[in-house]
Amino acid sequence: MTSFRAVNPHTAEEFGPEIQNASQSEVAAAIEAANAPLLSPAERAQLLRNISLAIESDRAKIVPLAMQESGLPEARINGELTRTVFQINTFAELVASGAFLDPKIDRADPAYGMGPRPDIRKINQPLRVVAIFAASNFPLAFSTAGGDSASALAAGCAVVLKAHPSHPNTSRAVFAAIQKGIADSGQPKELFSLVEGNDPQITHWLAEHPKITAVGFTGSGAVGKLLMELTAKREVPIPVFAEMGAINPVFVTPSAIAERNEALVKGAIDSALMGSGQFCTKPGFFVVPKSHAEVFLAEVEKYLSTLTVGPLLNKGIADRYSSTISTLTKLGSVKAISANTADAGLAVTPTFFIAEWQTVAANPELLEEHFGPTSVIAIAEESKFEEIASSLEGQLTATIHGTENDDVKGLLAILAEKAGRVIWNAFPTGVSVTAAMQHGGQWPSSSSHTTSVGTDAIYRFMRPVSYQGMPDAFLPDGLKDSNPLSLERLVNGIRTKQ
Amino acid sequence: MTSFRAVNPHTAEEFGPEIQNASQSEVAAAIEAANAPLLSPAERAQLLRNISLAIESDRAKIVPLAMQESGLPEARINGELTRTVFQINTFAELVASGAFLDPKIDRADPAYGMGPRPDIRKINQPLRVVAIFAASNFPLAFSTAGGDSASALAAGCAVVLKAHPSHPNTSRAVFAAIQKGIADSGQPKELFSLVEGNDPQITHWLAEHPKITAVGFTGSGAVGKLLMELTAKREVPIPVFAEMGAINPVFVTPSAIAERNEALVKGAIDSALMGSGQFCTKPGFFVVPKSHAEVFLAEVEKYLSTLTVGPLLNKGIADRYSSTISTLTKLGSVKAISANTADAGLAVTPTFFIAEWQTVAANPELLEEHFGPTSVIAIAEESKFEEIASSLEGQLTATIHGTENDDVKGLLAILAEKAGRVIWNAFPTGVSVTAAMQHGGQWPSSSSHTTSVGTDAIYRFMRPVSYQGMPDAFLPDGLKDSNPLSLERLVNGIRTKQ
Repeated sequence: MTSFRAVNPHTAEEFGPEIQNASQSEVAAAIEAANAPLLSPAERAQLLRNISLAIESDRAKIVPLAMQESGLPEARINGELTRTVFQINTFAELVASGAFLDPKIDRADPAYGMGPRPDIRKINQPLRVVAIFAASNFPLAFSTAGGDSASALAAGCAVVLKAHPSHPNTSRAVFAAIQKGIADSGQPKELFSLVEGNDPQITHWLAEHPKITAVGFTGSGAVGKLLMELTAKREVPIPVFAEMGAINPVFVTPSAIAERNEALVKGAIDSALMGSGQFCTKPGFFVVPKSHAEVFLAEVEKYLSTLTVGPLLNKGIADRYSSTISTLTKLGSVKAISANTADAGLAVTPTFFIAEWQTVAANPELLEEHFGPTSVIAIAEESKFEEIASSLEGQLTATIHGTENDDVKGLLAILAEKAGRVIWNAFPTGVSVTAAMQHGGQWPSSSSHTTSVGTDAIYRFMRPVSYQGMPDAFLPDGLKDSNPLSLERLVNGIRTKQ
Repeated sequence: MTSFRAVNPHTAEEFGPEIQNASQSEVAAAIEAANAPLLSPAERAQLLRNISLAIESDRAKIVPLAMQESGLPEARINGELTRTVFQINTFAELVASGAFLDPKIDRADPAYGMGPRPDIRKINQPLRVVAIFAASNFPLAFSTAGGDSASALAAGCAVVLKAHPSHPNTSRAVFAAIQKGIADSGQPKELFSLVEGNDPQITHWLAEHPKITAVGFTGSGAVGKLLMELTAKREVPIPVFAEMGAINPVFVTPSAIAERNEALVKGAIDSALMGSGQFCTKPGFFVVPKSHAEVFLAEVEKYLSTLTVGPLLNKGIADRYSSTISTLTKLGSVKAISANTADAGLAVTPTFFIAEWQTVAANPELLEEHFGPTSVIAIAEESKFEEIASSLEGQLTATIHGTENDDVKGLLAILAEKAGRVIWNAFPTGVSVTAAMQHGGQWPSSSSHTTSVGTDAIYRFMRPVSYQGMPDAFLPDGLKDSNPLSLERLVNGIRTKQ
């Protein structure tokens, strides 16, 4: 197929214009035209603010499109636009501070301990032109102007954005706002370009082009691993920052159930079903203690029976979900509990699977990520919790629900080896954008130890360069003696604005 | 062969004990026993200091061994031991400061711009057990207790060190000192283990073992690329920090030659022949302007004729060098100038190759790294310098020799894209260990944008972990409210010791 149209998940009907698949030469042309001008921190912060302003101004146009294409409710999409704009502004603030340049100056020292030291100065420089792959499940916050795009622009890179075919019209609307922000800042439109299509070859053309210096990706393990293979085989290999999902285990102690069973179950299920279970941080695996399993599961069954969830994002996800549920339902010694089925469009039946830990361990498909409204609840002796945690693969998040009297230090230490973010008495969905946030971590949840959420995401798209003995006039502004950008710098080991 | 002995490069004769190749089960046993206890910054800094003290105490034992095994002169080896000890102490200082933990605290904020924010705290944690491959060319500073080992220990990792077969007895002596430092600190000997051998399979066994979480390597592109392939194919891929060498281009402007030809040529050749041309930062490629080539080359010929250099590190390097020189000498339109040949052991004839840029461009082997006392001098119109720079592969370093009146901004901008360190009016050999140092950078000179020299090398062996809503008692000390380690932390975006 050379073209496709958007689909409304509520009706499974196509709508909107035909979207043409980009050809190889169109992809190459976008990359070759890409242009990341050298901007001062203040100019780049202003560019980001202009982009966020333009997106906010188009809220009334973008939100209905994203709702129509994703099937997600208005409150969620409105919140996601707020988050998208906030995220860009957070990067603007970091960029304006200049802290992202991380300038370090070690002045010449003839008496240095290992022998005379020349003047050496280091600063971060952008990787130039990066390919970003939008995610399906956050049509705004992890898509066209999402965290990967915002952090790459903030770093000083030009972005070639592969739009997700699940929401092509939302992507176009956001792209138009980005272009308005770029134009309002007097910058070249080639700073950001959009590549459209559902042809899998587009992924190859982007990852293999010699001018691409890094890849940002949020999506399936299969595509993430393909990107790693493609980029490793290049004449010049490049980093791939792939966020590929996880089962985000949640361990529940007996005392947590004894203290707050109803609220705990409600929180757990609401988190698992949020966005119709299509979050990369969905708690897909709960471990509950045998001693308190009965009361916990009774509450699960009771609460689930009251729920109906919205449709899935696209037909591919809905088909894979139905096939998964059908497979898991046939497993022996596994109980399935379902919520209500909405009977329109891409709606499916939310289904939880319950089994003894031994059964889960014997059926590895229960420990895989399954996109959609499903989770696995394993029943185990509390004394087995550490052993279970040790047996798990790397995760984006890991959670403990307990009380402060619980002895969970051993479990916590194991989980901190497995996951990028460890959570206490809360749920992993709803990732805040802050300096301390870590979203990413251990394989196979992501391809590197970096984060794709929070301000540290910017460092994925920069590289340090040292200048030795360089005359002041030839140095980047961030390293000049007069400190014209008024940066806080590490000078001879001391943080100073001098 | 299941065993081998050290070779004295001055005589090409074997000496010392038989060194047995480690078997697969011995390698696995070393990795499985590896043990990195959780230490406070003060304890870990003390451990590093005890190791450096033990090495310094054994100077009189280590230096003669390293001289005998490397063929390098006493001043060089003594300086290298000083550098090794200094490097470890520099990491001790960083560790003691706690800055390497990079703690960030974002307190809960119900009024946060994108929606209520939970309490999130992030800190660096060690990768646990890493495999380090020692280099041949720095028997101390890039070997058993070299920069990779020191930064991994500083990060809190256990190290499994693959000794380089070029200097097995030096490795044993340094290993003994490391073990003394570990014992003096009351730490387990399994914090650091030595794997010996020249069997290429050992590389596979180390890189493929599931308990290894990262690889540090300094050496050839062939082995670096093998390590990348092996680690990418693992069930859990791991990062490889491979520093694989470069030709380290040096561009010379007409005004530099006009101003200081004699000193410039002496500096250039001394740098190229330092350590018998076996530095990864050796300037292996000079570009000189056609207008001033004659006077520059006359001085090269004159100075070279006065020189004799020491033997190469081992028979493999010496054989490859001779074969390379023989190949390059046969190229058409390339002039070879040689220095004197020392006629003992693994000594070779230092040989420089001179050609017009067009000839160099047409013979890619002139643009490859060749270990040993050889460099290529290309003659080109100054107007071609930027084009030549653009055509080069990624480099560890790039250098300009000029005067401050030269218009080199364009050339400099290109070189800052190509290299991790850009140097003005100095030479790339002699890498200082400082916070601002960058040693590594663009492919194929290294496998990542990190540095293997300087204090930033520590971050290769750590990963950030976030803790969300965690009770104070369960947090790592570096993140507790009371700040028991007295760290400078980023709290709600502000740097503070509170």
